[in-house]
Amino acid sequence: MDGYLSGEQPEGNKIIKLNTNENPYPPAPEIQVAIHKFCSEDLRRYPPPTADKFRDLAAALHNVKRENIIATRGGDELLRLLITTYVEPGEPIGMTDPTYSLYPVLAQVQNCPVVKIPLGKDWSLPTDFAKKINAARCKLTFLINPQAPSGKLIDVESISAIASELNSVLLVDEAYIDFVSKDYSSVALIKEHSNLVFLRTLSKGFSLAGLRFGYGIATQSLISPMLDKTRDSYNLDLLSQIIAETALENRAYAMGNCDKIIDQRARLHRSLGESGLRAEASETNFLLVTVPQSFSCSAEELYMRLKALGILIRYFSDPRLSDKVRITVGTAEENDSLMSAIRQISNP
Amino acid sequence: MDGYLSGEQPEGNKIIKLNTNENPYPPAPEIQVAIHKFCSEDLRRYPPPTADKFRDLAAALHNVKRENIIATRGGDELLRLLITTYVEPGEPIGMTDPTYSLYPVLAQVQNCPVVKIPLGKDWSLPTDFAKKINAARCKLTFLINPQAPSGKLIDVESISAIASELNSVLLVDEAYIDFVSKDYSSVALIKEHSNLVFLRTLSKGFSLAGLRFGYGIATQSLISPMLDKTRDSYNLDLLSQIIAETALENRAYAMGNCDKIIDQRARLHRSLGESGLRAEASETNFLLVTVPQSFSCSAEELYMRLKALGILIRYFSDPRLSDKVRITVGTAEENDSLMSAIRQISNP
Repeated sequence: MDGYLSGEQPEGNKIIKLNTNENPYPPAPEIQVAIHKFCSEDLRRYPPPTADKFRDLAAALHNVKRENIIATRGGDELLRLLITTYVEPGEPIGMTDPTYSLYPVLAQVQNCPVVKIPLGKDWSLPTDFAKKINAARCKLTFLINPQAPSGKLIDVESISAIASELNSVLLVDEAYIDFVSKDYSSVALIKEHSNLVFLRTLSKGFSLAGLRFGYGIATQSLISPMLDKTRDSYNLDLLSQIIAETALENRAYAMGNCDKIIDQRARLHRSLGESGLRAEASETNFLLVTVPQSFSCSAEELYMRLKALGILIRYFSDPRLSDKVRITVGTAEENDSLMSAIRQISNP
Repeated sequence: MDGYLSGEQPEGNKIIKLNTNENPYPPAPEIQVAIHKFCSEDLRRYPPPTADKFRDLAAALHNVKRENIIATRGGDELLRLLITTYVEPGEPIGMTDPTYSLYPVLAQVQNCPVVKIPLGKDWSLPTDFAKKINAARCKLTFLINPQAPSGKLIDVESISAIASELNSVLLVDEAYIDFVSKDYSSVALIKEHSNLVFLRTLSKGFSLAGLRFGYGIATQSLISPMLDKTRDSYNLDLLSQIIAETALENRAYAMGNCDKIIDQRARLHRSLGESGLRAEASETNFLLVTVPQSFSCSAEELYMRLKALGILIRYFSDPRLSDKVRITVGTAEENDSLMSAIRQISNP
């Protein structure tokens, strides 16, 4: 089997990185203050094992209880814990096709076959999604919402309907939820659905991909086996916990950055259209962009030529995505540089 | 099944904590400098996925190559990766009895039966240890060296002989190796034994239990499936990597602290003997102490009475350890307070 292939991470600062959906704005300034105040001698002792202060802050934010929260080493750890806790090797895991490319890799690591349900032409979930998952006897299903790589948002009613119909655990990965432009709130669904887990991460909306901090939200009976049994005893170091707490305490700053990204996303969407490319509507910090036959080069060539100009975007070899690229929304300046490079490529 | 039961972690600073084998001395001052210099904006991006700078430093320290090192979120993560990579559910895992209490918990999490080979009266490994492990068809064996909870060191020749005879993977957990007083060097054995993995951690000798950073050393063919397949994609955050690198670069400071602990260990060993308690010879930062019938109270009572006096030590309910307590070696002042409390208990 192949491991997970992450986006390129070049050394050097002149590269414009629009390939791994990192947030282009810095984290809250209070985080720098917290790091400066940190006393290294405090690392002598073991950290709080279950990050309860963070859990309390997350619980308050989502109007749930501490028992409904598990703090994890990035969203990745939560995905692994769900598999090792709720799926036996050989039992299938459901997902859409396409989806976040890490999911099938994690399933393979645990020797679980993958059941892929194709999305519709407009990236919509088929109406019989849950029925197909049940028929395939999946023990766990991964949905990413807003979706990757399309950026399309699944509405709360659909999530609720799928959770109701599924007879197994449903993980809804809300990694990009902070970039949704409309009023959207799904977490209260855990009170109705005992098989529903939401994944949140500080990597995207909070500009903390380097921190590796995420959390799960679910009914206590789903959280507690992961928290008390399958999780590594001390999964989160002390300094990460303090930074993550500071991030939640200063959430308004991060949400201000997200608003800027939402503005830039609209601007980039328009500019790409004006250059003969077709971006999907997106509720994330990236755009899935079709390179039509009428454009001066193919999607793969566009990726290569931008790379030669020092701009990294993402190209996937998946057949359904072969005429597309994924572009992370950058700062105004980064997006300007990207558009100027695209214009140069399309009108040489 | 029960989760891992870690030692108590009280709030408040007046407690003397001699219960979880934390290092009483601070980490190298260069670590505080590195934290102060850290720019929080660097957390915006994903961290180096395999911590290669740290791996290079560890490789240089041990005179091996980068390919022989995997950096992990504490030693715990390495233990889990070994099980998920090299043991199928249902296949047995070997260990001594007694041993580090986390091992059977990790085996249970992966649904692996545990094969426990009792240690001799003096905590020595039985001469037919490897033969018994092979007969039980264990796929993986956990040895801790120096041993816990006895503190006894297994010599290099014995490790080599066991690795030769075993027909499966042998993990030697060297969590406490920095406290060995004599000249001891085992890592070169990986060049002879393709089934041998050493575990190291920064938690003990480097005073960084709160950091959660460890590493494995083995032949490349054992390391690479864990590094490239079963490990979470970004298991180590950026700031932890920088702190861990700084720790290795300033190893001499940590080894100076270990020398102080070795001195304190000898002093505490003597004082305990003078108070009618019997400590095992130890090559770690803790002492396993027998409370004889002639003492004024039982081991469990000693634990309780010290706790009432604000001093935490460790008591295990394991029948073979029921007349014993485990005491972490503290600073000179902490050890003085402990001894004064013990004298107060024994001569009320």
